Amino acid sequence: MLVHEAEPFNAEPTSAALGTNFLTATDTFYSRNHGPIPTLDPAAWRLDVDGLVGTHLWLSLKDLREQFTEYSITATVQCAGNRRAALIAVREIPGEDPWRDGATSTATWAGVRLADVLARAGVTATAGDAQGAHVAFDAPDVSQLAEPPQAYGGSIPLSKALSGEVLLAWSMNGVPLTPVHGAPLRVIVPGWIGARSVKWLNRITVQHTPSENYFQSVAYRLLPPEADPDSAGPGDGLSLGPIALNSAILSPANDATVVAGLVQVRGYAFAGDARAVARVDVSPDEGNTWVQADLGEDHGPWAWRMWSTEVNLPAGDCVLLARAWDGTAAAQPSDAAHLWNPKGYVSNAWPRATVHATPSTM
Amino acid sequence: MLVHEAEPFNAEPTSAALGTNFLTATDTFYSRNHGPIPTLDPAAWRLDVDGLVGTHLWLSLKDLREQFTEYSITATVQCAGNRRAALIAVREIPGEDPWRDGATSTATWAGVRLADVLARAGVTATAGDAQGAHVAFDAPDVSQLAEPPQAYGGSIPLSKALSGEVLLAWSMNGVPLTPVHGAPLRVIVPGWIGARSVKWLNRITVQHTPSENYFQSVAYRLLPPEADPDSAGPGDGLSLGPIALNSAILSPANDATVVAGLVQVRGYAFAGDARAVARVDVSPDEGNTWVQADLGEDHGPWAWRMWSTEVNLPAGDCVLLARAWDGTAAAQPSDAAHLWNPKGYVSNAWPRATVHATPSTM
Repeated sequence: MLVHEAEPFNAEPTSAALGTNFLTATDTFYSRNHGPIPTLDPAAWRLDVDGLVGTHLWLSLKDLREQFTEYSITATVQCAGNRRAALIAVREIPGEDPWRDGATSTATWAGVRLADVLARAGVTATAGDAQGAHVAFDAPDVSQLAEPPQAYGGSIPLSKALSGEVLLAWSMNGVPLTPVHGAPLRVIVPGWIGARSVKWLNRITVQHTPSENYFQSVAYRLLPPEADPDSAGPGDGLSLGPIALNSAILSPANDATVVAGLVQVRGYAFAGDARAVARVDVSPDEGNTWVQADLGEDHGPWAWRMWSTEVNLPAGDCVLLARAWDGTAAAQPSDAAHLWNPKGYVSNAWPRATVHATPSTM
Repeated sequence: MLVHEAEPFNAEPTSAALGTNFLTATDTFYSRNHGPIPTLDPAAWRLDVDGLVGTHLWLSLKDLREQFTEYSITATVQCAGNRRAALIAVREIPGEDPWRDGATSTATWAGVRLADVLARAGVTATAGDAQGAHVAFDAPDVSQLAEPPQAYGGSIPLSKALSGEVLLAWSMNGVPLTPVHGAPLRVIVPGWIGARSVKWLNRITVQHTPSENYFQSVAYRLLPPEADPDSAGPGDGLSLGPIALNSAILSPANDATVVAGLVQVRGYAFAGDARAVARVDVSPDEGNTWVQADLGEDHGPWAWRMWSTEVNLPAGDCVLLARAWDGTAAAQPSDAAHLWNPKGYVSNAWPRATVHATPSTM
């Protein structure tokens, strides 16, 4: 793991570790935190469900296990700051971690459907009436980085909350969640920025408005390039939610030395939102020519798509590029310079890897 | 109207005409046809609904009006070839019309929900079982451009067909459809390429597979740049469906002469699929600096968003650029050269307009 900060703990797997398997091992899974990691007693833990509900719920883990059907889903979680390093290479972004390609990972999550819990609380698709409704998540980890310091929280629209794919998960890759990944219970919001997959969940509130928590109303927003992030207030910029199309080259690593000739290039692509990856192209010559990569097994829109291809590299230095296309035939933008923003979010330009090819001895 | 072909009739409004109103007047609305325009007798016309249905339906216009609730929706229709001229400027695309920014228009459509008709036929969300299902539309306009010549058709997935926004429309902007726009009944599939909004609808078939009609299985597919479109066969490339984020500058026109100083720049943006336009930026200096445009009234995700701003232009020539962002903070790609494809679809790079500013006499 590449540790960006020890406290709060923020770390990502190396590209090599991330590319090993379709599913990311739990001890390799990236970790993004805004405060100290709480250690909660599963026996004492309760989930409070209130707000615009018909019935206020107060659920133990045993209640969740016994009263609801267990579902599992294989889903990629991705931080809105994933690949920020490519933006920092354009211009500095003070105070934000330089995440490389590993602020994203994929696991199989199991738990109950948020929709089922909301149904038990009497919440229907028309809750909130014409104004609509939002489902807010609260956790006990107090962040000193928030202004003012506050426990972590965030919300998603009711329509997403009622979709079958949003889970309240107690297990990850077949074993109970570890504390760093949100034990005893966390939200998994497939296709949305990791900031909404709230860990250590202890309260769900159905309400008329999006969360006013600092990490939704102020942080995790795309500001225009000229904005001053220190003076940005609630509601400035675009609130991030569904993830935008992105991809990364995991091998060869940037600055790697390889033997000239056929070289395997591998990586991931993730369409985000509810979209699918439709195509990935790789260029061995900085975009003059492209080859279509082979796409790995399709686990549906909630998980990334691994890809690989072989390119023929002459001896010397070259720049590998990749670009993904989604099901609308929308492509990633080419250039990180066009995407720079003061907090360094949505860094989804074509990934680049400079490779040094030494002459083959054959 | 700029007429690309008289037979089949293919014409688009000028940018000036398109920018006049949020709703496009019926006689200004773009017209994309693949064969002669049929003139159907509304009294004799029937709609056949069959395939994976519980009950075969055979409906007259009177049946549709009397047995179903009428709904209306304001929706943009957009051809997959809209803005192809920007790709042709990169490299020629033989045999395809050089649509400018006007192969898209917006109207208020009224008719019945396809979902309601399918429900009457006993079609549920689980039709087709595990393989899923598709809803195919057939029309009587035989196209000599298809190989072999055939009547026009296409399909959408059942999940989209059951969404509330897909209409079988008999009116446009408050009056009955004209023959050129599909009288007596056409499909409106908001957020999807115009090719699926089949005109002169006479048959709906629920089936296990996507339409094998030429205009879906061979045409309206995004081929990779190196493909030979003449030898491309069924299933090659990406099947286009939901529309990708796009925008256009409607004023000033490309190559226009204006007076230096504050100049109003106006255009449209359309996020496509079920997404919303979140932001539009305009650059007066080929991308060195950007200003955020003001967004016009929000009519929801199914209609385009008009935008405008003022930029200060010095005397001389300049290149105006625009770029739209959707709700995932995905931006349009910058460069048409990266998007060139042999049939010229999904031309959604930043729009450009070269403007000549003459010195102000003030």
